[in-house]
Amino acid sequence: MRMYDIIEKKRDGKELTKSEIDYFITGYSNDKIPDYQASALLMAIYFNGLSKLELLNLTFAMRDSSKKIDLSALKVPGKYIVDKHSTGGVGDKVTLIVLPIVAALGVGVCKMSGKGLGFTGGTADKLESIEGYDINIPIRLALKQVQDIGLCLISQSSEIAIADKKLYALRDTTATVESMELIASSIMSKKLASGVDKILLDVTVGSGAFMKDLDSAKELAKTMIEIGRDAGVETKAVITSMSEPLGRNVGNALEIKEVISFLLADENSLMSDEFRDLREVVFEIAAQMISMSGVCTDIEKNKKDIVRVILSGEAYNKFIELIKAQNGKVERVYMDWLGKDLDLPVTHDKVTFLKEIHAQSSGYIVSIDSKQIGEALVCLGGGRRKKDEEIDYSVGFEFSKKVGDKVEEGDVILTVLYNDKQNFEEAFSYIENAIYIDDIDEKLGNALRLKPHVLDILGEDDI
Amino acid sequence: MRMYDIIEKKRDGKELTKSEIDYFITGYSNDKIPDYQASALLMAIYFNGLSKLELLNLTFAMRDSSKKIDLSALKVPGKYIVDKHSTGGVGDKVTLIVLPIVAALGVGVCKMSGKGLGFTGGTADKLESIEGYDINIPIRLALKQVQDIGLCLISQSSEIAIADKKLYALRDTTATVESMELIASSIMSKKLASGVDKILLDVTVGSGAFMKDLDSAKELAKTMIEIGRDAGVETKAVITSMSEPLGRNVGNALEIKEVISFLLADENSLMSDEFRDLREVVFEIAAQMISMSGVCTDIEKNKKDIVRVILSGEAYNKFIELIKAQNGKVERVYMDWLGKDLDLPVTHDKVTFLKEIHAQSSGYIVSIDSKQIGEALVCLGGGRRKKDEEIDYSVGFEFSKKVGDKVEEGDVILTVLYNDKQNFEEAFSYIENAIYIDDIDEKLGNALRLKPHVLDILGEDDI
Repeated sequence: MRMYDIIEKKRDGKELTKSEIDYFITGYSNDKIPDYQASALLMAIYFNGLSKLELLNLTFAMRDSSKKIDLSALKVPGKYIVDKHSTGGVGDKVTLIVLPIVAALGVGVCKMSGKGLGFTGGTADKLESIEGYDINIPIRLALKQVQDIGLCLISQSSEIAIADKKLYALRDTTATVESMELIASSIMSKKLASGVDKILLDVTVGSGAFMKDLDSAKELAKTMIEIGRDAGVETKAVITSMSEPLGRNVGNALEIKEVISFLLADENSLMSDEFRDLREVVFEIAAQMISMSGVCTDIEKNKKDIVRVILSGEAYNKFIELIKAQNGKVERVYMDWLGKDLDLPVTHDKVTFLKEIHAQSSGYIVSIDSKQIGEALVCLGGGRRKKDEEIDYSVGFEFSKKVGDKVEEGDVILTVLYNDKQNFEEAFSYIENAIYIDDIDEKLGNALRLKPHVLDILGEDDI
Repeated sequence: MRMYDIIEKKRDGKELTKSEIDYFITGYSNDKIPDYQASALLMAIYFNGLSKLELLNLTFAMRDSSKKIDLSALKVPGKYIVDKHSTGGVGDKVTLIVLPIVAALGVGVCKMSGKGLGFTGGTADKLESIEGYDINIPIRLALKQVQDIGLCLISQSSEIAIADKKLYALRDTTATVESMELIASSIMSKKLASGVDKILLDVTVGSGAFMKDLDSAKELAKTMIEIGRDAGVETKAVITSMSEPLGRNVGNALEIKEVISFLLADENSLMSDEFRDLREVVFEIAAQMISMSGVCTDIEKNKKDIVRVILSGEAYNKFIELIKAQNGKVERVYMDWLGKDLDLPVTHDKVTFLKEIHAQSSGYIVSIDSKQIGEALVCLGGGRRKKDEEIDYSVGFEFSKKVGDKVEEGDVILTVLYNDKQNFEEAFSYIENAIYIDDIDEKLGNALRLKPHVLDILGEDDI
């Protein structure tokens, strides 16, 4: 078998056999096939796609390119181990809120998260904005932690699905990331190798996501659900909007603050406009995870329980337990509005400059382009252009207004937190392009504001 | 500027600017851009093609990736320096015959030739089948040789169009050779960098050529003619058939023998069926070269002069002068049929086995697939699978019959010369597949036999 023939076959639109795909993945994992042949094949796949069978074979070959994680220590009779994965976005701090909630409700999760790249943020970076937080703990200790406190949040293990790790790095430098099949196989190979029973996917759609429109997001979701089914791992997908940034804060330390606000919210604030989009997504994903885990399949009841563990402080306590367990620094602070002392995570949040961005005209905010905001964060140093680049955890954006909000000329739309004036100038051009205000009528404005952020929920019955 | 953005742009079907193309070629030539990014771009070009402007910019960037050869020492007032290039084939020994002929008629040529790869033969290998022939002489000495004897035949200089050298090697391992634009830019960048005034292209068409059908061959020809025009170097193209192997011999030393037979032919044999296809192609290309050089633009007169210098022995003498000038070994042999002593090149032609291949049925030979024959030669060791592989000069095929010939069951169609029985078995399956005999009527058989091999002649007026 020759790699040349495999490239040529795919280039000519023919279907690769299982043994050809295995040859490629094994050879590439073992450094026997050079990057330049792999990248030519990836580009041919970008153009010609993969059949269902090829996609399955590719995903399984990647899953099996190194050892699978053994989660049997976490198994409880009658309960399933569920993993949650988001296809990424801007302001996406859902994992950080959902995990403490479901852990407080008895759903243990051993979650691996990646770092951000380009305009897309990464949960690992957000956690590392907490002083001392150790994301790189070994699987053995992570499993122990889940047994002890019900959750862990660690970095993507370099030991599983090593083919994906190598391939992703290559795709990232050769403009072959945006392939539906390559995205699906990358995500599912890692998740299947992580040893879980079930997978809940948050498939984001909009400018700040891989999938730019609802149809392609659904297609990606269905593709991954089908892979899961064929691998014997039940998979569901919640399709969520990523056209505007999720929540009100974008930036690593700022997002940790938003997580804290959310988990400490009282009933009024939790149900207020402040958390509208974030609450909708968090509640749905948490409720689905609880359902899939076998704890309770009544989604509406789960949502009530979610509210309960937030208002009782149990979810926040889980969050603090997680931070402490992984060496994150917390400090005891007297919280005026709560009238009591509380452990608060200490983040890298020192910024030099604040700048308010004002509305240039009156009307309604029609759109806030999440990709542009993600790019602006990269300009400020809060995201990375290249792998392994250092980032500035403190910078970011606090939005005072969201899509559908009414604004008068001069109102503050967002505040930019930054450390370098040159960076701000660069970021500003993205921010300017991101926000679109129009003089639409009130009815339309309200419709925009109330547009759902959970767009669909798909399971095996939908494919 | 980032290579990533250039790949993405081409992947998305957008037009690259001159500065983007220059950035790629300069960066790749200087080893600043890695192979894996270059191969991704090449595959994107394979799928999305290049606009006319992109193609020109790519060709010129490759031409300028290293120094141009200075042929001014060869300049003669009123005469143009013409180069000849074939897009390759099986049994293609045209260069080896044409150059001595035109040199005998006062048209000097400093020709660079490449080695064969895959099923396509290379003129450099054919010359190296002559004991001692030194293909690697420096340009300086090559120019001196052209001044002295009117011709030289050397290997492709590693000093010109170095971007093409690197890119070709990469394309060859990443299944991105078969792109019309990449073929055109590769050929034309080298030819333009070789410093000639005019270029005559032999664009081959058929299974044993890059271009499988006449339309794509014409398109490639026109593309290259246009590049030549825009570079100020007049370019013409002769489109020739490569559906069956050219001439009666395939294999390096065997083809040298055929060259000798052709150049030593008397009037009867020169005009006989033996040389039908080879004669047609050689005469046309030599006549066009003489015309383009400014010596004489009357093609019919040129063809008569060609016959004259063959029959007088002047062309053969030029061939021997060439071999001797480049240290090729010749021996003095008494030629019975000529009734005199003659210098004959000594080739690496010792083979162990001969095997006649017989017709399995009676009828007419409808086709001899040149690609299969080229692959069979590779099996025998007479061609290379990988660059820089050693080859066996002595092996090959002597065809007793050609397309359109009538055969009776059991007639010898070809003789295989080989050194390894295992290799023969491999080659035999290709040979079997290559030859198709059918019981067609005489009229159709004759039509096949008399089908022209020069299919078209294109110049600047045709684009």
